[in-house]
This record gives sequence, C-alpha cells and structure tokens, in this order.
Amino acid sequence: MEHISLVVADGIATITLNRPAQLNAFTTIMENELIAAYDQLDADDSVRAIVLTGAGRAFCAGADLSAGAETFGEWQEEDADPEVRRDGGGRVVLRMFESRKPIIAAINGPAVGVGITMTLAADFRLAADDARIGFVFNRRGILPESCSTWFLPKLVPLQTALDWVYSGRVFDADEALRAGLVYRLYPKESLLDEAYTLARTLTEHSAPVSVALSRQMMWRTLGAEHPMIAHRVETRGLNIRGIGPDAREGISAFLEKRPAAFPDSVRDNTPDLFGDDLPIPAFRG
Amino acid sequence: MEHISLVVADGIATITLNRPAQLNAFTTIMENELIAAYDQLDADDSVRAIVLTGAGRAFCAGADLSAGAETFGEWQEEDADPEVRRDGGGRVVLRMFESRKPIIAAINGPAVGVGITMTLAADFRLAADDARIGFVFNRRGILPESCSTWFLPKLVPLQTALDWVYSGRVFDADEALRAGLVYRLYPKESLLDEAYTLARTLTEHSAPVSVALSRQMMWRTLGAEHPMIAHRVETRGLNIRGIGPDAREGISAFLEKRPAAFPDSVRDNTPDLFGDDLPIPAFRG
Amino acid sequence: MEHISLVVADGIATITLNRPAQLNAFTTIMENELIAAYDQLDADDSVRAIVLTGAGRAFCAGADLSAGAETFGEWQEEDADPEVRRDGGGRVVLRMFESRKPIIAAINGPAVGVGITMTLAADFRLAADDARIGFVFNRRGILPESCSTWFLPKLVPLQTALDWVYSGRVFDADEALRAGLVYRLYPKESLLDEAYTLARTLTEHSAPVSVALSRQMMWRTLGAEHPMIAHRVETRGLNIRGIGPDAREGISAFLEKRPAAFPDSVRDNTPDLFGDDLPIPAFRG
Repeated sequence: MEHISLVVADGIATITLNRPAQLNAFTTIMENELIAAYDQLDADDSVRAIVLTGAGRAFCAGADLSAGAETFGEWQEEDADPEVRRDGGGRVVLRMFESRKPIIAAINGPAVGVGITMTLAADFRLAADDARIGFVFNRRGILPESCSTWFLPKLVPLQTALDWVYSGRVFDADEALRAGLVYRLYPKESLLDEAYTLARTLTEHSAPVSVALSRQMMWRTLGAEHPMIAHRVETRGLNIRGIGPDAREGISAFLEKRPAAFPDSVRDNTPDLFGDDLPIPAFRG
Repeated sequence: MEHISLVVADGIATITLNRPAQLNAFTTIMENELIAAYDQLDADDSVRAIVLTGAGRAFCAGADLSAGAETFGEWQEEDADPEVRRDGGGRVVLRMFESRKPIIAAINGPAVGVGITMTLAADFRLAADDARIGFVFNRRGILPESCSTWFLPKLVPLQTALDWVYSGRVFDADEALRAGLVYRLYPKESLLDEAYTLARTLTEHSAPVSVALSRQMMWRTLGAEHPMIAHRVETRGLNIRGIGPDAREGISAFLEKRPAAFPDSVRDNTPDLFGDDLPIPAFRG
Repeated sequence: MEHISLVVADGIATITLNRPAQLNAFTTIMENELIAAYDQLDADDSVRAIVLTGAGRAFCAGADLSAGAETFGEWQEEDADPEVRRDGGGRVVLRMFESRKPIIAAINGPAVGVGITMTLAADFRLAADDARIGFVFNRRGILPESCSTWFLPKLVPLQTALDWVYSGRVFDADEALRAGLVYRLYPKESLLDEAYTLARTLTEHSAPVSVALSRQMMWRTLGAEHPMIAHRVETRGLNIRGIGPDAREGISAFLEKRPAAFPDSVRDNTPDLFGDDLPIPAFRG
C-alpha cells in the first residue's frame, strides 16, 4: 500500500490515510487502495470491525489539488471517449456501502471535501473535538460527490445539510455533533481508543454473520419504497438463519445464561439475501 | 382471543398482549389475533384510536423461545416446501401500516426483540420511564425482523439505529427518548391514562375519514421517490373530499366558530386514493 | 402581479404574499403568480437567492374560504370532466422543488394550512418568535396537500409529523423550532434582515451554477432508492463541471488564497444532469 496503511489487531482493522505531508489528500492511488482494503477485510474472518483514520494532524484535506486548475481536466483525460471517469470518492463509498464489517471513521483532524464525504458511508463518525469539517465543493466551482447528495440528508436535518452544501463553509466539531453528523466527540489523544471501544461494543456479543447481514439489510433498505421490501429480505433471512448453527447456539446460550460461541463464518456462511437467485417467498397474507 | 385481549371504551380500543406469566412472549396465535383485532377495529366506526399495551410487568419479552434451540426450526417445518414461512412480526406490522386508526404503543415494561419491533409501525410510542428496550437479534444469531430494517432508521438517527442493531444491547427508556424512538416518557402508573389523553388529542377535532386517509397518505408516501407521487394522491383526495359532506361541515363550522360534527363514516365513506381504478389526474402543468 | 409582490435588490429577490386584509389567504391567482415568479427568478442571473414572506401581520392564513362551504366545489367546477383540478399548493411546491436558487421562507406571522405547507419545499424556514403554525386540514374535513405528506416527515421526527397532521392543532414557533420545522427563530422586527443575512451566507463564496446544481441534486436525490443514483448524477456533474471555467477559477483562487470570481452563468451554463439525453457513464467497477 502506497497512500494508506492497514493493520489488524485484536479483531479490529485500522485503515490509515497515510500521506501526512499532504494532509492525506485524496488520490486515485488512495481510491484504489481503499477499495482493495475493504475487499481484503471482508474476506478475513479475524476482522470484526474497521476503523478509518488519518496519519498526522489531518484526517483528509480533500482531493489532491497539486495539479492546480487542471486537476479535474487531467483526471478526465485519463479516459478515452466515450467513457466517463467515475467519481473516485463515489467508487469508495459504494464499496463501503457493501461492507460486511462495521466501519467507524475516527476523524482526527480537518476533514474537507472528499475528506468528509468519504466518511458518510461509514456506520459511525467519531471526531476529535478540534476537528473542522467542510463540504467545500461549491467554493471550488465543482459539485458535491461521493454520493453525499444521497447520504448527507439521511444523517443530519435537511436544512443543515442544505446550509453546509450550498455555502461550502467550514464548521467546527461541535456543530457537527449537534447536527448528528458525528456520533460522539473526544479529545484527540483518546479518539482512537474510543473508536476501538465502540468497535468492541458493537461486535463482542453478536454473531459475526448476523452483523454482516444486518449491516447490509439496514443500508440497502434505507431508500426502499415500501416496508414489504424489508419483509421479503427479512423473511428470507429468518428462514435461512433461523435454523442455522448460529441461531441454535445463540438461543441455547441465552436460555443457559452463558456467553454464546457462534460457529458460522462471514466468509463462508453469509447467504445472499438480496439476489434474484433465491426463491421469492410465496407470501400467504 | 387467547393471547391478547381487546376492549373498546369511550371511542378508544385497548389491545393488551395477554400472556403475563410468559412476559407476553410473542406466538403465532398472538400474531394472528393481532391481525384480526386490527381488521375488526378498522371496521368499527365507534373506534377513533387504538392503544397497544402489555399485561403485567412486561410489554413483550420477544419471541416465545420455549421450544429452545428448535424454535425457528419447528417454525419452518410448519410449512411444506417450496413455501416459505413469512416473518410473523412482519405480517403484524404490515397490517398496522394499513390501519385506518392511529395506533399508540404504551410500552409499560421490557420490550425486547419482536416486543419492540412490532411497535415501530405504531404512530406513537409512549413508555414507562423504567422500560428497557433491545433489538437483541444479533445476540441470538438471527436477524432483525418485523420490517424493522425499514422502520427504525425513519424514527431515530441512523448512527443510533446501527448501534442498537449491530450490538443487540439493551438500553433504558431515557436513551430511547433522547433518540426519538419514544415520543414521551411517563411514570408507569400514569402511562395508560396519558396514552388515552394523546388518543383524544389526536382525534377529537378531526374528521374521522380525514384521519384515516391522512394516516395512509403519510405512511405510504414515506418511501416515495418523488413528491409528484404525493401530489397525485393528494389531488385525488382533495377532488373527492373537497366536495364531500365532511368538507362542507368542516368549513361551515370553522366560519361559524362552532365545533364540527362530521357526518362521513370511515367504514362506509373512505375512498381508495391509491388504487389503480381511480383515473389518474390529467395534470395541466 | 395582483396577489403577490416581487422586488429584487442586492442579488436577493423578495416575494411577498400580498393580500394583507385577507391575511394573505391563498388563491388561484396567487398560485399562478408564485409559479410565474419562480420562473422569472430562475432566468435572472442577478438573483442569487429568494426570500418568501407575507405582507402585514400574517404569513398566510391558508386557502381563501370566502366562498364558504362551496370553496372546493367551485374549485372543481372550473374544470370539465374528466379532467381533475390539480392541487394548487402542490403545483407551487413542485415548481419550488425545481428552483435553481435557494428559497428562504421568512414566516412573519400565522402560517396555517397551505400557508405552512407551501413553505416545505423552501430550503429554509425562519420564523418570527410569535408565529403560530397549523396543519389544520383534518379539522376542516379535507386532507393535507402541497405534497406535505412527502415533505413533512423529511423535516421533522415522524411522531411529531403524525401528531400535527392527525390532530390539526395549531402550535407555537418554539415547538416548530424544537422539532426542526423551523431552522431559526427571530424577533419579528429582525426576521427579514436575518433572512437576507442567511441568503448572503449561503451564496457569497459559492459558484452560482454549483449552488443551482447542488440544490437540484440534493432535492431530487432525497427519495432515491440507492446511492448509485446519486453516483451517476455526481459523476456526470464532475465530468462536466470539473473541466469548466468555474472549476479552473475556483481551484486557482483557492491555491492563490484570493476570492474567486466565477464566470459561469446559471441561465446559460447550467447543464441538465438528470436528462436522458446525456450518455450514461460506462462504469468501470
């Protein structure tokens, strides 16, 4: 890895944006390395949760603008007509959207532009209490990206989201907390430890496959038109999971008042509840 | 009724989950009785609102696990292949979703698993200040159900919903109130009276058919892709309701500064604003 | 203009509902004049934002009921069968939904019925601290309109929205602020100045075309089923905007630490990011 680093310890992976001299400015290399890291971690049963943070004093200062006014011109010229270069931040968040492991963004310092939008598909955003945040796109003459036009109004009140996006103003961590963009604030020196504590709280008593599936169910259902869509997926899920080894162990452990030891593997035993290949339940009203 | 009880008084129906010795654990019998109760109450013009509560010290302790590890195995064996057993909690909340009467859940004690998810399609959740709540599915090796993956993020901040679902942890009523899951908290001894007071406040000055239709409009529009979908339904609604007896009475009473006596019957005079049989308005831009 | 007035000064347009003797009650004339005003302002590059307010002591007392019980009967008789008269408030908010300029409702006094629902497609609602608000439709025997069944639950907690709609009760500005319906409250005498200050904050450092497009992207994506829908629009947007004059100026100005002077015109240089005529990006996963 060139622009990020990846460490796994005690069941938690830490992805670190790792260009501290450039305030971890986002590059195409970083984009592709992040996607590869999420792929790798989904396939690694030793990983229960993922923490995403930045090296040095910043989280991420946004797109690397070292090419100046030509930044997005060069970006486009990489691709032959009629193909269109996909938004790189969007590629990253769409991969995060599919993650089987909870993702906690630990925003250790300034998070601006794609530096904040790339965290919106994380399950949680914790921040250092002196972090500063900005959706600055309109001030650069470009546009919000990383699917932030979809994610942001699902996280903060709509009037706040519109204020931040239209104005492009940079605001402090307290405003982010009050609006609900950030789940909790911590002093910078304890931020990573608090992220690890949350990661353990989320996963320590839960079946790994249940976490993986419930993560996909929550995110994919978020924009669903009707609760019947959830009912179909949940019905499939209960029919498959309800008779599996994890459910037998989970219910037995509960009745015997002992900790559960869930046998199922995320890598090997995660059914596809969304695919067209599964039979649609024959609903009996 | 075997596992619930149903009483109607002063225009308000009270459905009580009624297996106090089993902490009102959810059964297939309860599932079917709840659906039958909602059907009956929709057809009864003497009922303006519904209160859902539990007998004894609990609201509902979740699925009845008395069959132990085989709970969901037996559940599946009821059905011949290739049919799939539908999620029972989902059947109940989808019926609540269609209710013509506002539903107020009065959570008088512990509400865990389907005990809390079955309340998410209620219009309001009031709780006793010592109630405890948990979306415990992942701790049992199963999955969230009752369409909770659709409803929950519409009621509480997304980060909170993900925390509760992934971890399966049990939390107290104060946390539920702060997150907005619960509308208001009361001491246990006044909870039911407060539910009845809210039921009266919601309905006493409103036309019953307007309440029935606005309930369906609000819930069914919640996941709609575009406001034009609401516009079509609302246009139909105003064209039908705007010239009806209720509107004439409501406007006359307002202009004469007297209480209205609305003549229309929910059972007999509720138009279907959603059916394909109604002509689509010929919109004149 | 007969029932509204329109003034442009210092880059901000003020639309005033202007029937003070009738508390600015909504009419078909007002409906059509509002739509014409939004059309005119979208085409005027001197206008950066729009403030919507009421003349005299009220914002808007709702539909004009001077025809009494026949109000909506006459309304329907305007149209020959089989055409259906579209909801007038709905026509107005659907036009606001498409606006290229941010809209700030400055609710200077009572806002009842369509008087409040017509503000839900504004980007912001500021209110006088003694304003009173009501979704009173059910008390008149009619139904919520102006696409409020779509907008309202996107602005306030669902339980609050249902309370207001079912009961039709009138509530004060503090309750509106606490629920998030109103962004901020001010004394009546400073309300308009505060609306102008917000208008400037939203627009003064942003490229006008970026504001126009980000407004459309945020509102149109609000009900989208999946973030991929945002990704397609954002990818198109970045490919077009990223190499344009505004981006070159915005990035250069940022790197040179000077204010930007964005050259692009909303009227002449706003691409259609949503139309089917643009090629769908050939996504390379």
